[in-house]
Amino acid sequence: MAMKAKKINKMLDEAIPLRHPLKLNEAMRYSLLAGGKRVRPILCIASCELNNSDESLAMPIACAIEMIHTASLIHDDLPCMDNDDLRRGKPTNHKVFGESTAVLAGDAFLSFAFEHIACNTNNVSPDRLVRIFAELSSVIGSKGLVAGQFVDIESEGKVVSLKELEYIHVHKTAKLLEACVVCGVIIGGGNDNDIEKVRIYARFIGLLFQVVDDILDVTKSSVELGKTAGKDLVSNKATYPKVMGIDEAKNFAYHLMNQVVQQLACFDTAKAAPLYHLAYCIANRQN
Amino acid sequence: MAMKAKKINKMLDEAIPLRHPLKLNEAMRYSLLAGGKRVRPILCIASCELNNSDESLAMPIACAIEMIHTASLIHDDLPCMDNDDLRRGKPTNHKVFGESTAVLAGDAFLSFAFEHIACNTNNVSPDRLVRIFAELSSVIGSKGLVAGQFVDIESEGKVVSLKELEYIHVHKTAKLLEACVVCGVIIGGGNDNDIEKVRIYARFIGLLFQVVDDILDVTKSSVELGKTAGKDLVSNKATYPKVMGIDEAKNFAYHLMNQVVQQLACFDTAKAAPLYHLAYCIANRQN
Repeated sequence: MAMKAKKINKMLDEAIPLRHPLKLNEAMRYSLLAGGKRVRPILCIASCELNNSDESLAMPIACAIEMIHTASLIHDDLPCMDNDDLRRGKPTNHKVFGESTAVLAGDAFLSFAFEHIACNTNNVSPDRLVRIFAELSSVIGSKGLVAGQFVDIESEGKVVSLKELEYIHVHKTAKLLEACVVCGVIIGGGNDNDIEKVRIYARFIGLLFQVVDDILDVTKSSVELGKTAGKDLVSNKATYPKVMGIDEAKNFAYHLMNQVVQQLACFDTAKAAPLYHLAYCIANRQN
Repeated sequence: MAMKAKKINKMLDEAIPLRHPLKLNEAMRYSLLAGGKRVRPILCIASCELNNSDESLAMPIACAIEMIHTASLIHDDLPCMDNDDLRRGKPTNHKVFGESTAVLAGDAFLSFAFEHIACNTNNVSPDRLVRIFAELSSVIGSKGLVAGQFVDIESEGKVVSLKELEYIHVHKTAKLLEACVVCGVIIGGGNDNDIEKVRIYARFIGLLFQVVDDILDVTKSSVELGKTAGKDLVSNKATYPKVMGIDEAKNFAYHLMNQVVQQLACFDTAKAAPLYHLAYCIANRQN
């Protein structure tokens, strides 16, 4: 996984050269190359490899997905949104480059992601690429990331139901994860059954992540978490432990993990190893 | 042209239904359906028809281009950008829906444009669609619209050379116009020669628009223009009349119009009529 991340970082670095207008490209590079575990591109490449296809097929799409993710982070941090000063321990994009540049850097990524796929994907039939475009574009806008961020902003300071929380989580996080694996399988030549399996896999790990997050909030201390523990209890936020009780929430997480394993059973175990690994990491994380 | 615009308005109206989250979709509809002459989609459809192809082939792309144009207007108007309160006589998007919604509505259009093309274009081979994606995405980001807006914002209050002005104009306006006609010809089945002809046509009308704009600024009164005349003279802005003199600027406009006519000579005159018409309107406008 570390080797994959290194290769992805190299490709991302090469994708945005320092050309005119310099400051705009600097701003794009600042956020794109600010670290991060590259979970999304790794998922995309691993899904491509499920069908013995080479990672190079999926690399442009994997990079494009990281660009889309970066665009959403830059815009989410803006003063008119979450107004965050820090991201991964570094000043946010608008803090360094100014608000107008941050808006434009995000905009540039949203279109460059598609340009990068269209111009750099080789040895793939155009009909597969059109499917990728349809899949990927649908998880960004008013049915995806943007919708999640919109409802998140609108629900600030209000009593948030579990249904609304799930809506936000599905749209802000889970849909893009789903696009990672689905696009990976499509580009790797997987069939409709493979696509369906990884689609459900992605939904389960998305949900698993949220349930584990909620459990950690009530079972760990602030020191163990590295952030304020018990926040969900004092806020009006609905959580799985609150709604179903802590034991039932743990059972639910266990059930989700079993479902994940089931979805991957039809693939070669060695090829599916990164997808298993990611699910185990999510289920067993301690902070 | 009026009939085409009416049909385009109907398609745009249907493209963004009022679904959850309601306010986000309302904000998108507010700016998309706020009027406007629909020059870009009309150009795209007319270019498709040059090769006797039906307008329905180009309609999703034509609508997508208007969405991209709308996204750029919403973001350009933001307080951190040009800080405009009015657009086409109506309050700007962020004035009505708030800044965060305006940012998100623009973001949603940038991705929905691609989704709309990928999901609604019928009877077109996928390889043509991939070319459309490459062409269109390349004129939005850090080599297109975004770059133009960035340099425009950065040059505020500074002495701006003709070269910089041209950069801004080419990137903020001309490149998207070029994409309109190029994508129209590609989707309509035109060959490489056709593409080259309309590409040059678009460059000439983009330039023509700027030269005529500069001439009007020094030859017309504020009442005739409907905006402050002589603005370019008192500002540090370089203009064609300033650099080459008013008579030479008029000659240049005449020369550009001749070039436009030459580029269209290879097409059927009736089919190319909307493209001629647009050039004449630009050359002969009085405000």
